[in-house]
Amino acid sequence: MMTTKRIPALLTLAVLLPLAALAQPRQNNLTVVPPPARIVSPVIDGAKTTFSISAPQAITVSLHGSWMNPDDNCYGPLVQDTQVGVIPMTRGENGVWSCTIDTPAPELWTYNFYIDGVYVPDFANPLIQRDGTRLLSILLVPGKLSENYAGATQHGNLNMVWYDSPTLGFERRMYVYTPYGYEAKANQKTKYPVLYLLHGGGCDEDTWESMGRVTAIADNLIQKGLAKPMIIVMPNGNASQSSSPFLQISAPADAAAAARQNRNGYIHSLVKDIIPYIESHYRVVPKADYRAVSGLSMGGGHTLSVTAEYPGTFSYICPMGCGGNRNEDFVKGLLGIKKAGYKLYWLAAGTSDFAYPGAKVLDEVLTENGMPHTFYTKNGGHTWSNWRIFLNEMLPLLFK
Amino acid sequence: MMTTKRIPALLTLAVLLPLAALAQPRQNNLTVVPPPARIVSPVIDGAKTTFSISAPQAITVSLHGSWMNPDDNCYGPLVQDTQVGVIPMTRGENGVWSCTIDTPAPELWTYNFYIDGVYVPDFANPLIQRDGTRLLSILLVPGKLSENYAGATQHGNLNMVWYDSPTLGFERRMYVYTPYGYEAKANQKTKYPVLYLLHGGGCDEDTWESMGRVTAIADNLIQKGLAKPMIIVMPNGNASQSSSPFLQISAPADAAAAARQNRNGYIHSLVKDIIPYIESHYRVVPKADYRAVSGLSMGGGHTLSVTAEYPGTFSYICPMGCGGNRNEDFVKGLLGIKKAGYKLYWLAAGTSDFAYPGAKVLDEVLTENGMPHTFYTKNGGHTWSNWRIFLNEMLPLLFK
Repeated sequence: MMTTKRIPALLTLAVLLPLAALAQPRQNNLTVVPPPARIVSPVIDGAKTTFSISAPQAITVSLHGSWMNPDDNCYGPLVQDTQVGVIPMTRGENGVWSCTIDTPAPELWTYNFYIDGVYVPDFANPLIQRDGTRLLSILLVPGKLSENYAGATQHGNLNMVWYDSPTLGFERRMYVYTPYGYEAKANQKTKYPVLYLLHGGGCDEDTWESMGRVTAIADNLIQKGLAKPMIIVMPNGNASQSSSPFLQISAPADAAAAARQNRNGYIHSLVKDIIPYIESHYRVVPKADYRAVSGLSMGGGHTLSVTAEYPGTFSYICPMGCGGNRNEDFVKGLLGIKKAGYKLYWLAAGTSDFAYPGAKVLDEVLTENGMPHTFYTKNGGHTWSNWRIFLNEMLPLLFK
Repeated sequence: MMTTKRIPALLTLAVLLPLAALAQPRQNNLTVVPPPARIVSPVIDGAKTTFSISAPQAITVSLHGSWMNPDDNCYGPLVQDTQVGVIPMTRGENGVWSCTIDTPAPELWTYNFYIDGVYVPDFANPLIQRDGTRLLSILLVPGKLSENYAGATQHGNLNMVWYDSPTLGFERRMYVYTPYGYEAKANQKTKYPVLYLLHGGGCDEDTWESMGRVTAIADNLIQKGLAKPMIIVMPNGNASQSSSPFLQISAPADAAAAARQNRNGYIHSLVKDIIPYIESHYRVVPKADYRAVSGLSMGGGHTLSVTAEYPGTFSYICPMGCGGNRNEDFVKGLLGIKKAGYKLYWLAAGTSDFAYPGAKVLDEVLTENGMPHTFYTKNGGHTWSNWRIFLNEMLPLLFK
């Protein structure tokens, strides 16, 4: 695999490139310009992958990809880019810039172009993710690791559902995935288990779908018979929001302010508002053995809190990328879970995740208190790459 | 309102701007750069609106907005930009470029920045639309025209539903909007009418939501008591697609090829596959008086075809931005509709729409054949601005 080009090696090129570009005929942006040529990008051709973008007036264009620093402790390229090199792109005919690299390892990578100081997504590529207001283009390299990130032929439905939250004081939105077959006449008496899947800080009810590819992963695992057909509920974990900021639908100001002050309000609403809504509106089994809860980072913290506050509610407990401690209250919470009983305690963290030391403490505290559990670790950091991999590992363990 | 600056007036500026920018300290994109400053854009401050973007290394930055040519016969800025001027932006501190304009009239406008030859959306603005692979930032100027494009406090659910299409030979996706209250216990015996809402060429099942703001418009009209609570079904009108290309879920190749050859296959699937699915999975009244069909452009053509092929199926018929003719078959289709009976025939077109002459013919042919109808016209072209306005006008007329 091509090594990422570092700055010193490119110093000469860095000086020459802008001059070479200036030598090209340039149009000023205040003149009338034709629409850019039809571009196909990215093109994965076996061991080589080519990226292209039309930027006829640009001075320099480069490519930044998440594969350049896969273990990085962050979500997107903006921070990564301060830590790693970039791949310069070459101006070709019609102002189309391109570069060809060795195809990265199988994974769902993200990338951006960096054009004269501005990060832009690949406009030719329909696969795009939103992370906050950042737009990341997707390079899905097929292979073992990414085999469940696309390609299912049996698809569950994704429902954007508004529900009332008396606990928080306003109506809120959640995503509800129902598995393939849920709507089929033959299954109208079938009741399903439910995974409550929680997001991290800065994310919302859309993020497990947009960044985590939850429907693709669930569709594939269920179609292959590796995971039980299940409902997956993805609430919004920001107590003062009604829904993703992208919708621009604000919660009532007073209620939002109160929600901000309502410690653990969200996890109370999860048990008091969301679970009853799901159990009265979907064909589910309203018992702990048919409920799982999992989440990443802040959502891992929510997983720890809600299981401690409501022991015996969830039989499957799967925090990811978060940690525990030996404080009296925390241990008391764990002992409550132990007493109530559970079927699976599955903790996951990347070994270069900043939350790994805390996860290791949680692993130890669970052991010290005689609580059977799995501590699933792999390389990598606090990244969506790992959240997807963990989800893919976890779903087959649930409800069995 | 500020007039759009035209090219000749800016010729001097056009020459000077790049030189002025070059005089600024520039970083090369191959060096390590800090993330861009936190930008707020756009900022509507009464009569003035300011746009900003961080582009520290750019030579020229300008703003292109759909308000510059609101009557244009196209969907987005790419074509518009070849026809209208642009507004130059000024480089400020930290490489942040900005411009302040007179706030355009109330409307949902779209805009892009044009940075050294590349169109980019406003990364600071969470309101974004996808039109094909183009990303358009939204400037929602509040006022009478746009009052239903946001702001409802009672929200219906949007469901992304996979259904089997025996007619086309594969599973396909549609969006199904269920109105506020549909899920409420008190309404579990209420049955609803259904609008089948069809998209235009180049669009898919996502476009009425992304570009047409259908949930916002329906939520507002229903909450205000102006429209009946209804279910809105938005199928994918491209017979060879399983779903929006953004999902990258292909239909089986053989079935897709057959679907391409299957003339009117989509409209047959609408009646034979989609209506039965909706009527067996949702609480609806399975009668013509509780079914409406509408569509824009290609979807207007589908509306004409499906009502001619299946007279008596829909009592509310609302083609938009499309036309008729005096061919024998076409008139025979209309007479079949007349014979079967209908409650509303509502035709809409913008007076500068390229489809307007054809719509005028349809208006005349309906009159000549003694078919009561409304020909709703206004200024403007074959644009999403008009499709939203037509939807907002039409929903209150249905099921009354």
